[in-house]
Amino acid sequence: MARPTPLSGFPEWLPDGRIVEQHVLDVLRRTFELHGFAGIETRAVEPLDQLLRKGETSKEVYVLRRLQEDPEAGAERGGQLGLHFDLTVPFARYVLENAGHLAFPFRRYQIQKVWRGERPQDGRFREFVQADIDVVGAGELAYHFEVELPLVMAEALGALRAIGLPEVRILVNNRKVAEGFYRGLGLTDVEGVLRSIDKLDKIGADAVAALLVAEAGATQDQARACLELASISGTDQSVVDRVLELAGRVGARHELLDEGLAELGQLVRAAQDRAPGVVVADLRIARGLDYYTGSVYETVLVGHEQLGSICSGGRYDTLASDGATTYPGVGLSIGVSRVVSRLLGAGLVRATRSVPSAVLVAVSSEEDRDRSDAVATALRSRGIPVEVAPSAAKFGKQIRHADRRGIPFVWFPGPAEAGGSADQVKDIRSGEQVAADAGTWCPPAEDLHPRVVAATVS
Amino acid sequence: MARPTPLSGFPEWLPDGRIVEQHVLDVLRRTFELHGFAGIETRAVEPLDQLLRKGETSKEVYVLRRLQEDPEAGAERGGQLGLHFDLTVPFARYVLENAGHLAFPFRRYQIQKVWRGERPQDGRFREFVQADIDVVGAGELAYHFEVELPLVMAEALGALRAIGLPEVRILVNNRKVAEGFYRGLGLTDVEGVLRSIDKLDKIGADAVAALLVAEAGATQDQARACLELASISGTDQSVVDRVLELAGRVGARHELLDEGLAELGQLVRAAQDRAPGVVVADLRIARGLDYYTGSVYETVLVGHEQLGSICSGGRYDTLASDGATTYPGVGLSIGVSRVVSRLLGAGLVRATRSVPSAVLVAVSSEEDRDRSDAVATALRSRGIPVEVAPSAAKFGKQIRHADRRGIPFVWFPGPAEAGGSADQVKDIRSGEQVAADAGTWCPPAEDLHPRVVAATVS
Repeated sequence: MARPTPLSGFPEWLPDGRIVEQHVLDVLRRTFELHGFAGIETRAVEPLDQLLRKGETSKEVYVLRRLQEDPEAGAERGGQLGLHFDLTVPFARYVLENAGHLAFPFRRYQIQKVWRGERPQDGRFREFVQADIDVVGAGELAYHFEVELPLVMAEALGALRAIGLPEVRILVNNRKVAEGFYRGLGLTDVEGVLRSIDKLDKIGADAVAALLVAEAGATQDQARACLELASISGTDQSVVDRVLELAGRVGARHELLDEGLAELGQLVRAAQDRAPGVVVADLRIARGLDYYTGSVYETVLVGHEQLGSICSGGRYDTLASDGATTYPGVGLSIGVSRVVSRLLGAGLVRATRSVPSAVLVAVSSEEDRDRSDAVATALRSRGIPVEVAPSAAKFGKQIRHADRRGIPFVWFPGPAEAGGSADQVKDIRSGEQVAADAGTWCPPAEDLHPRVVAATVS
Repeated sequence: MARPTPLSGFPEWLPDGRIVEQHVLDVLRRTFELHGFAGIETRAVEPLDQLLRKGETSKEVYVLRRLQEDPEAGAERGGQLGLHFDLTVPFARYVLENAGHLAFPFRRYQIQKVWRGERPQDGRFREFVQADIDVVGAGELAYHFEVELPLVMAEALGALRAIGLPEVRILVNNRKVAEGFYRGLGLTDVEGVLRSIDKLDKIGADAVAALLVAEAGATQDQARACLELASISGTDQSVVDRVLELAGRVGARHELLDEGLAELGQLVRAAQDRAPGVVVADLRIARGLDYYTGSVYETVLVGHEQLGSICSGGRYDTLASDGATTYPGVGLSIGVSRVVSRLLGAGLVRATRSVPSAVLVAVSSEEDRDRSDAVATALRSRGIPVEVAPSAAKFGKQIRHADRRGIPFVWFPGPAEAGGSADQVKDIRSGEQVAADAGTWCPPAEDLHPRVVAATVS
């Protein structure tokens, strides 16, 4: 077998990169559990017809077939399966399937791989890990969850700053504000306006104004008002005041606008208190407003804005429905692979070693391997990760074995007849070697497990 | 959308079941890391031609295609992808791809889902989780790793006995013993003999004897000797002595037999010391001896033998090869989904609650939600998982909200003007309610996180 080459769009990490990814996953899990989210995992596949309920995603789905399957078999075609492309569609299905066994409102987190048959680009993969939190209610879901969830993500992402994740900005908007404002102006093609506004970053204000007139039925004045709304952003109540001032000036009044502004105001005030500077109301955010029904969230890494959003989501009034009951939900999803690939690719973080082992126990001869195994067992029984040298090579070679992996300590068992009393342990970084007892010795806490640190910290 | 039904062969758990699964995964990961195995994760897909290198697995593979892909496109067909059906094929590819960046012998664990398009049965799934450990060397790999790896698995599975996993027996055999014995007898169709012996459990000794004569070229005496070898099992050196006695009696001498017996003896002696009673040398084990080159392992749950092996593996002299270098390896794989589905399905274990939250903070009115949020933040800052009541319902309803989820404590914030000094916390199991300070109160350690316990323990 020749040396294989990587598959574009299917990222994999070397062991030290995986330590970084695992650390990110552990921090996210811990944060989500501190906030009472229950972990679930869904199967990787869904019936194709469920995956294709929203037409626009159809091009991204990987369809499965068994190799020996008759491609003409009608029954199999009817039950065709595809890999899930997000964790929201599977979650909605899980909620419906298990509604009788779940307690609502149901808070869940879900950390899994998803697949999309897209053209790979920087930060855009065909296989990647998402970390989602959602709260779903049966019949109703109070607005305060739309305040809570981005703040949980702010905390989770904030916890990663210790390892070198750049600052984040969570940008929020509210469908009700946009729709209420447009309707108040007299515009009825809300989706058309949103589609045009969504192009602001790409084509600029003048071209968007022309689009609004040409395709969304707006007058020049209405177009200008829409663009002015989109220019408003901020981290405090002044955002609401500025929208109110604009709405008054252009005569855009609508009860949906009032409702949306009350909500948005509640969110920015809570965020000012609990995650100052992180949450920014940004009325330009239009992506997702066509399918979310309330709040919508996007998140950028400061200094890495071109990477795109690393954490997005919003509120659905109908996450799922079985006819009798409607399940509204609100949630956000972190693109873990996108974040980790940037952390690693830009050299922002590193693991302090590539293996879990804190100690390598040296072997003086293969006949004495038992003695080294006994030392390892004694250390492990107190939670210290240990491996035993693969061969009774010269000690210099055994020390290099540890050094190549970043294992900080090498243990030298004394002669069997000494019963452990002649054991010594060497810190191979400093060279310091001291007598040690495998029943009591511990490495310094910072050496016990590999740590993930900002790459500038040595 | 009507209520969806489960897909056969694609198991999913309710939140309390997932707590059990997650606990099992955490115990495995912890054990593997204590022994210095580095975690890696490989992509879910491999090129189809790699997956099909062993013909016999071809029927099990799920092939992927992008929904919009032209099925006639030659380029795409050449690069067809399939979902991996185990973690060994991807690991071998990963080793070759990254050999220049890995330090050998390389110890890795890998816990991931795999997919097989088989007919689902009890304990046999189409999507399931495997947990693998392997050690792979560059050019050479000492025998002592074949002793070490099953003992790591014995420790990992032993650590699960605390939550109600039944005892396990790790059955070991050695290709060299079997092949050396057969060759010493004068039999040359080793694979044929192994195939016949593998049918012992299904068709019985007489039928196997007939097969050995008819298909493996054995005489009646040779067939009887092969069956006698297969009847030997035990947990100590006596196993080796009995094989030697038999070999002497039937005149089966071969250096491969001597080498294999020396290895097997080393394994049973180490196991007697480090995992007494768990490892059983069983010369009947033939499955896998056709492709493993040294030790082979199977594991049964005592009392659940009909479930099949829950942890299998062995030694490959050529796990991978790039032409210049050959990479021998030894490893075992736990069928996590098989174990977890039995633990849950047979009611052997349970989680003490279905959510991470140790505390529900009650909300006296929506205006005072801030006050409850502040209590939650104070508790979380000390690592206590907390959720805040979803609505300011009557306290009885809020307590029922906690009770339904198994949350043991409900926190009642005092009036805002008391500044926390009038807070109380109730243990809803005992009904005991005491004054408490959110800056210092802790739940008992056993209530901090959901625990997984044997189902008979209340």
